Amino acid sequence: MGDIKRVVVLGSTGSIGRQTLEVISALPHRFSVIGLAAGRNTGLLAEQISQFQPRFIYSQDKTPPTGAKYQFLSLEAMASHPEADIVVMATSGKWGLKPTLAAVKAGKRIALANKESLVMAGEIITRQAKQSKAQILPVDSEHSAIFQCLQGEAQKAARIILTASGGPFRGYSPTRLAKVTPEQALKHPSWRMGKKVTIDSATLMNKGLEVIEARWLFDMPFDNIRILIHPQSIIHSMVEFADGSVKAQLGQPDMRLPIQSALSYPERLGNPNLPHLDWDNIKEFNFEPPDFESFPCLKLAIEAGKKGGTYPAALCAADEIAVELFLSKRIKFTDIPRLVGQALAEHKSIAHPTLEEILAADTKTRENVKKMVGDNR
Amino acid sequence: MGDIKRVVVLGSTGSIGRQTLEVISALPHRFSVIGLAAGRNTGLLAEQISQFQPRFIYSQDKTPPTGAKYQFLSLEAMASHPEADIVVMATSGKWGLKPTLAAVKAGKRIALANKESLVMAGEIITRQAKQSKAQILPVDSEHSAIFQCLQGEAQKAARIILTASGGPFRGYSPTRLAKVTPEQALKHPSWRMGKKVTIDSATLMNKGLEVIEARWLFDMPFDNIRILIHPQSIIHSMVEFADGSVKAQLGQPDMRLPIQSALSYPERLGNPNLPHLDWDNIKEFNFEPPDFESFPCLKLAIEAGKKGGTYPAALCAADEIAVELFLSKRIKFTDIPRLVGQALAEHKSIAHPTLEEILAADTKTRENVKKMVGDNR
Repeated sequence: MGDIKRVVVLGSTGSIGRQTLEVISALPHRFSVIGLAAGRNTGLLAEQISQFQPRFIYSQDKTPPTGAKYQFLSLEAMASHPEADIVVMATSGKWGLKPTLAAVKAGKRIALANKESLVMAGEIITRQAKQSKAQILPVDSEHSAIFQCLQGEAQKAARIILTASGGPFRGYSPTRLAKVTPEQALKHPSWRMGKKVTIDSATLMNKGLEVIEARWLFDMPFDNIRILIHPQSIIHSMVEFADGSVKAQLGQPDMRLPIQSALSYPERLGNPNLPHLDWDNIKEFNFEPPDFESFPCLKLAIEAGKKGGTYPAALCAADEIAVELFLSKRIKFTDIPRLVGQALAEHKSIAHPTLEEILAADTKTRENVKKMVGDNR
Repeated sequence: MGDIKRVVVLGSTGSIGRQTLEVISALPHRFSVIGLAAGRNTGLLAEQISQFQPRFIYSQDKTPPTGAKYQFLSLEAMASHPEADIVVMATSGKWGLKPTLAAVKAGKRIALANKESLVMAGEIITRQAKQSKAQILPVDSEHSAIFQCLQGEAQKAARIILTASGGPFRGYSPTRLAKVTPEQALKHPSWRMGKKVTIDSATLMNKGLEVIEARWLFDMPFDNIRILIHPQSIIHSMVEFADGSVKAQLGQPDMRLPIQSALSYPERLGNPNLPHLDWDNIKEFNFEPPDFESFPCLKLAIEAGKKGGTYPAALCAADEIAVELFLSKRIKFTDIPRLVGQALAEHKSIAHPTLEEILAADTKTRENVKKMVGDNR
């Protein structure tokens, strides 16, 4: 067996963060938590600190919980700390961007759950990772599947087949979609995830962001990435090779599987808490093409990805605001793609942007979308 | 790109042999045929000789076709010839055993389609391959799938899920099975194969032999090999790892895919003649457990495999004779498992047998099965 890997978890109180800590507590002989960073959920952070006794912490509200001995570090400092072997990037949205880049520059192994980093700044991050030899291990189940399927292959994939559950509204017409509520949208048929990504799964924006992520992670042209709806969410994605052979990775839809896989790579560890597929009860897998008509976010995301520049940053920003507005019941479900589409149409992109230009595009787009709905907060 | 690999094909006029030559003719910059060995189909062998101009040939009827310059070699001499880089073992039945062992002793890369070698003498062959560093690359689509899924993995598989089409008589009751004709049994729903293996697919004996083959190829306990009926024959098999992650290999049911994969490993080569999966037309995969009641050959094979010794050799011998008797309409389809079961019950096994003991068990069992049906040929 190897030695104990020291892990920092950025975004430890979110869904991925909590599941990461579940995996680590089942494998104390392999992993120890040396850093925890959270947003505003200081109650849970305090519990996690008392359980894992990390040396470094970060809390967005700057009032460090008491009762333990630790050093307060910035997200970037924690992500690039010399003692960290693995950095789990589980923060959501654009907050992951700078710490991800810090971890990449420091040549870390990064278990990357924050898709916005790659979507917004894929060009910068992948170029930087090549220089620093940082290892980006995807935590998204789809990208983890692709990564696993590529192991041991002498050549690149010819094509990626990104599977999608289709979300809770698969088969809905646009008219019916206009009436869905946040409560309905938050009930995902197969995955336990945070709110933002659950809504993104319902609009299929999430799948669009994953296409852009796959483009950067696997250096794959957009036209060679195909989306396939597979409602059972057992096949997590597939890779086709030059000879026509296809490899797929399968598993129960449980984020702890790809999380553990990213932590333990290239090893695989037995973990009694993780579910196994039960072939006695698996009777069929279904497949169908995605419905680009009812779910326009998918096309918007792929178009933004193809155009490049700051379009993907504008896409993420517009979507984040639109999802917030939907969750607070200020807009309809079908207004999400409408607002994102309008924001992208009005966006003035910069080619090969710097990090500052990306963040400026983010700020500007957020303001723009708020203006569209007359929100002056 | 690499240099041109020199290939000998033993069993070149059979189904696998012909498909091997199809693959090689599409990739003349990578492979050249230096040896061809055939049984009694001297007409086709002569055509193949004139097309591929091999230096070595073997023909079972000992009347070498004329019109080309070549050396007549024994199967063993060809399989172990110093100039052969890859030996394709496509002979059927026990005739593959000695040449396979010769190729293994010579440390060759062996593209192994002859399952009887491993079923009858798995212990001897795998021990010998370890010593000589011979590389056994499976050509059976299932074992090729498993081999592909294991690439790049740091650990052994926890479990193998061997898929099976279920054959043309899936869902048939024993009564209905008693009436099926050779013509019906020779119509396999998904695969283009030789007669013997097509009948073995209809009785599920083929799947049983594959379980034994998998046990030796992947050093996997019988109880960790599961059979799953998947009528579409798109998933060629799966591997489950310690962490619950499962990898599958998929492709059109076309033997040229695993043949090319074994020839080109670890590379994958584009070949315009090979079919790709068409996800526009794949709507579902179905799964069900195998029917051990209607298809007793499956259980007979697994039991023979578990018992070991010369039981698997007796199994192969009894099955070969029984299939011949069925094809010549002398016994019913359901007599195949009956005769095989009786032969195994009467068999006196020798533990850890030598090659001679294995071949003696083969001869004795053949005679015994013929006696059972009153055949004194």
